[in-house]
Amino acid sequence: MREIDETQMSDIARGAAVLGTGGGGDPYVGRLLAEQALRQHGPVTLLDVDELPDDAVVVPVALMGAPTVMLEKMPAGDEATNALRAVAQLIGKRVTHTVSIEAGGLNSVTPFIAAAELGLPLVDADAMGRAFPELQMVLPTLSGVHASPMTMADERGNAITLQTVDNAWAERLARAITVEMGCTAAVSLYVLTGRQIKELMVPGTITLCERLGTGIREAREQHRDPVAVATELLRGKKLFTGKIVDIQRKTEAGFARGEAHLDGVGEDLGSRFELAFQNEHLVARHDGEVVASVPDLICVLDTDSGEPVTTEMLRYGVRVTVLAAPCDPRWRTDAALELVGPGYFGYDHEYVPIA
Amino acid sequence: MREIDETQMSDIARGAAVLGTGGGGDPYVGRLLAEQALRQHGPVTLLDVDELPDDAVVVPVALMGAPTVMLEKMPAGDEATNALRAVAQLIGKRVTHTVSIEAGGLNSVTPFIAAAELGLPLVDADAMGRAFPELQMVLPTLSGVHASPMTMADERGNAITLQTVDNAWAERLARAITVEMGCTAAVSLYVLTGRQIKELMVPGTITLCERLGTGIREAREQHRDPVAVATELLRGKKLFTGKIVDIQRKTEAGFARGEAHLDGVGEDLGSRFELAFQNEHLVARHDGEVVASVPDLICVLDTDSGEPVTTEMLRYGVRVTVLAAPCDPRWRTDAALELVGPGYFGYDHEYVPIA
Repeated sequence: MREIDETQMSDIARGAAVLGTGGGGDPYVGRLLAEQALRQHGPVTLLDVDELPDDAVVVPVALMGAPTVMLEKMPAGDEATNALRAVAQLIGKRVTHTVSIEAGGLNSVTPFIAAAELGLPLVDADAMGRAFPELQMVLPTLSGVHASPMTMADERGNAITLQTVDNAWAERLARAITVEMGCTAAVSLYVLTGRQIKELMVPGTITLCERLGTGIREAREQHRDPVAVATELLRGKKLFTGKIVDIQRKTEAGFARGEAHLDGVGEDLGSRFELAFQNEHLVARHDGEVVASVPDLICVLDTDSGEPVTTEMLRYGVRVTVLAAPCDPRWRTDAALELVGPGYFGYDHEYVPIA
Repeated sequence: MREIDETQMSDIARGAAVLGTGGGGDPYVGRLLAEQALRQHGPVTLLDVDELPDDAVVVPVALMGAPTVMLEKMPAGDEATNALRAVAQLIGKRVTHTVSIEAGGLNSVTPFIAAAELGLPLVDADAMGRAFPELQMVLPTLSGVHASPMTMADERGNAITLQTVDNAWAERLARAITVEMGCTAAVSLYVLTGRQIKELMVPGTITLCERLGTGIREAREQHRDPVAVATELLRGKKLFTGKIVDIQRKTEAGFARGEAHLDGVGEDLGSRFELAFQNEHLVARHDGEVVASVPDLICVLDTDSGEPVTTEMLRYGVRVTVLAAPCDPRWRTDAALELVGPGYFGYDHEYVPIA
């Protein structure tokens, strides 16, 4: 158990954006909103998963939508708190903790805002160990946990609750609502007990985000290679170093979808590389051959500064290094691959795990 | 106060489809569902507005969506009951009555289904005196009554509640949800007290539906002109008699939109006529000149049988007579015309009331 204050938000958001694999929201927007909330309401208590009572009532919060839009239409800040409060009312129980659904520049810090505003402790964990584009894509889904009772809130004051027959329907309905709300909405869902958190979530995600964010910053300050530090912390490997020569993107059906093309630099000179994304990076191809894909993490970092580059920041001429890192092993079962593997996203290649 | 049983549903649905002005749902589907519910659960008590206690808690129910789709994807029947139950839970009060939101072949009888299943009496009234395509288009909106707390339910078991900042947002969000639910959904909204019902609703709509439905049937049986009977009961006037020579329709954004073109028959020989609709008929043109428009009622009847012809039943060669009838006078104020007048639907002509 430790206290997190606003001075740590910058590092946490940076590291979270690495785990966000291109999505999970912009770390700068996330940092600004969380810093403001923590300055105003004081520090947030961060709990290890082991410290959590089995009967804890843990309610996650997140922002849903196209990250492209969140850059222009800033969240008001209190949507997440409103969504969490609405779940509390719905279940008629006292909420004891909150937690992240996914790792991401915005979605790792959104629960800090709700935690600060409501005086709740935050559990050091998340439901993916990374970011995924659709809300049924969490480890608890694999164990039959229902997304609903679920609530949604926008910055205007509209509030919606959903009780769905399964988590795929939760995604479908929530996505349509998000689009209508202007492509962003706060969501609160997957109410979990302390015991379920211990069994079904990825532990230590916030601490990993902070170590990644601190490690990248310190390496840069000390003129060491920040990308190498990140690669080591992720137990990943370098896939490609290059510069972006082409980027196509569109905001459709509530997602940011697109492709980025890179030309090799340095030891990759003469090679080409391709990233396909739906909010998050889904597939990486080196000279036409798939070298990494969901559910493994494909992380894009600025080659010089080591800063995570979200898909919205991909633009012509940016020099980046692409890393791959192994996902949580629970994502590698057949059932999990049906939920988040390449086939789900319409790719016909087999998933080959990153070593 | 009187009892309505399944033998009356056929006439009520027929008359309701006349007031539905092309929309409001298919009277055959509505009749089948309501007959089944009333056979199973027994008759429903119909109350005059005057008989209602001021502190009654009245919760309306309706089906929302594109009528085109409801013909193919039959409602399960209990969605409306589920939606009403969810509102009751939300407001934490005992619901004492239900009522129609709009007049229509399906939406005048949907509340009978919920009333029968829940043992609730039904108020003889509706919120429009006709059908309109969007859910903010009810007389209570003009007096500042909120659509929400609102609930939605589909035939799978998905359930949603909405609390919106205004009634236009209720329509926007509910429409997106309806589309995702497969273009039809049950909705329950506009919780009203007995006093509000008396002040804000159109009284006697069910009775008028029944008189229209019975009148048309009896005239046909007695070889009198059923169209003339309907015209008189509506205090309307005949606009055109012809046959349909062209019909364009598309299901878009959760609505059935289109245009029908008619060639004159009999005394209208040589003339052309045009109907534009969005679920309901919006504008009627005779040789290019607007002769009726929302909020007045444009009703299309089969010339021989007097049966109401919904927009889904418009097809090449059908011989119809088009009537216009005056809307409830409260729809003719400036504020009301902003909500439901031709300008709202994108037409630039001034509204000229039917005498």
